[in-house]
Amino acid sequence: MAHIYIYSPSGAVRDKAAFRRGIQRLKVLGHEVEVDPAALASVQRFAGDDAERVAAIARAAASGADVSLISRGGYGLTRILPDIDFAAVAQAAKAGMRWVGFSDFTALQLGALAKTGATTWSGPALIADIGAPDEPDDITLDCLDDVIHGHAEGTGWVMGKKQAEQLHQDLQRLGLRPEGGESVRVAEHATLWGGNLAVVAALLGTPYFPQVEGGVLYLEDVGEPVYRIERLLTQLQLAGVLTRQKAVVLGGFTEMATTAHDKGFSMKTVVARLAQQLPVPVIPALPFGHVPTKVCLPTGACVSLSVHGREVMMLWDDHDHDHDHDHHGH
Amino acid sequence: MAHIYIYSPSGAVRDKAAFRRGIQRLKVLGHEVEVDPAALASVQRFAGDDAERVAAIARAAASGADVSLISRGGYGLTRILPDIDFAAVAQAAKAGMRWVGFSDFTALQLGALAKTGATTWSGPALIADIGAPDEPDDITLDCLDDVIHGHAEGTGWVMGKKQAEQLHQDLQRLGLRPEGGESVRVAEHATLWGGNLAVVAALLGTPYFPQVEGGVLYLEDVGEPVYRIERLLTQLQLAGVLTRQKAVVLGGFTEMATTAHDKGFSMKTVVARLAQQLPVPVIPALPFGHVPTKVCLPTGACVSLSVHGREVMMLWDDHDHDHDHDHHGH
Repeated sequence: MAHIYIYSPSGAVRDKAAFRRGIQRLKVLGHEVEVDPAALASVQRFAGDDAERVAAIARAAASGADVSLISRGGYGLTRILPDIDFAAVAQAAKAGMRWVGFSDFTALQLGALAKTGATTWSGPALIADIGAPDEPDDITLDCLDDVIHGHAEGTGWVMGKKQAEQLHQDLQRLGLRPEGGESVRVAEHATLWGGNLAVVAALLGTPYFPQVEGGVLYLEDVGEPVYRIERLLTQLQLAGVLTRQKAVVLGGFTEMATTAHDKGFSMKTVVARLAQQLPVPVIPALPFGHVPTKVCLPTGACVSLSVHGREVMMLWDDHDHDHDHDHHGH
Repeated sequence: MAHIYIYSPSGAVRDKAAFRRGIQRLKVLGHEVEVDPAALASVQRFAGDDAERVAAIARAAASGADVSLISRGGYGLTRILPDIDFAAVAQAAKAGMRWVGFSDFTALQLGALAKTGATTWSGPALIADIGAPDEPDDITLDCLDDVIHGHAEGTGWVMGKKQAEQLHQDLQRLGLRPEGGESVRVAEHATLWGGNLAVVAALLGTPYFPQVEGGVLYLEDVGEPVYRIERLLTQLQLAGVLTRQKAVVLGGFTEMATTAHDKGFSMKTVVARLAQQLPVPVIPALPFGHVPTKVCLPTGACVSLSVHGREVMMLWDDHDHDHDHDHHGH
């Protein structure tokens, strides 16, 4: 059982019932839950003013908890990046704290990676994933549990049949062929990084954008018109970021708005065009994003990535690989 | 009377009545209007596929027209930036062609500035500004006319009383005091650049983002939730772009969406915070953007900028300054 610290670095918590429900569920799971004094603060759209949220991050870092979990995302981290004590974030991570969250939290994760090389976890948020009216997703809970107990050693997922066929065509075109068995090794000892596409792109050109070469970049987004998604991907492409990776992995792109004007322009055509243009594979169907089922991803850690038929397997390097991976086949 | 070339580098033209009306109005004004063969092309949401739009830009450059005017913006330029022949764009500009447009057109303008130093004009688009059902705005037409005939030598505008009071407080705090009369000189021989904020930010980190030091950066946007506007401004700020300018000039930020969750977070608070944080003045009320009344702005040209009471005056350096400026006081 773990000590979990709940804090609010981004948007103000409006759904207090879900907040309480989430805490209650974590307690029922046997965890000791500590709530930051400003977790329910509210100034404009933010969970407290900038200084308050910076202080909340510092308190989370100093809490000695096993896990610090954001209450929710929203918007609020990019504007306080210059004030965050990333050394303290990294020190806490080194001492064993797992920083967990997603969405706007991407800014804290990539800032920490850029400034200190610290590993943080992309994973659930309290309100959206633990406290929602419906029972939390089993896989999401299992993955979080693995992170909490330090058992997380990788993740795997299954692509759709057509997705897999397209990917294998692309892999072949790119000269990535199966070794030994039939597994195609796409990346080894590669830095895993990424997060919410809009937030990743919003850091480009700033000191909080990690300079990762030969990495595995994962991306997700929610509620954007498709043309914006393409514009953001194009920005990362024109900046040379995508080309410098070993693979681009796409999670959920949900609530994407298309209009009559799009006339067939869609996430599908955007992804197909991207895959065609890039000299690196674009791997679909990562269970991560603004979706109920989300795995936990160690942002900043070294990973290996391989594809076998319709299965994708991502393993963290920094773990005892003698263990059985089967139960992580989310 | 001028030779005006109409082409479509971005979104497909859907409102063909407005397209025809715009052309008719330009003809009534006495201009010779040449329409690009692909001006009404349509592939997905675009005015023809990527190669077609790249070719349309090349045809505009080769047309020998006095003015090349976009039919409309939308989305489509960032994804073809690597294929645009910017040398041809610059050569045409040098030979006297005025490239005119706004919104998505910002990508072509900043790409041209970054790659060649060419001056292009932020100004109206055919459909939104000339062909709309309502009669075109007089000032917009006058400014375009000045550009067409090479008479444009500057622009001026009047701030609101409170805006002016705040600006003068900021100018004083920044040590910018009136000389001689009561006019505060904010910038001299400074590169004027900018455009649509989302597009400006979408070029950050790419080879199409101009590296302008000590410039005058103007920005406008439409139809974005306010938090996104702030995130984009924050990106430019964290990248050091805003700090490196002599002034940031704000045009129209229209159809900005706020929600109940914003609780007082608004363009007003965003601009106030920005002005407070920046070591350079933030000058409001530029008549430019997705608004009926828009002046024409020579992106890439050298300008001087001064403030006198509620009036802001921006003059292009490269012009005979003996002329009377009064009739440009839009």
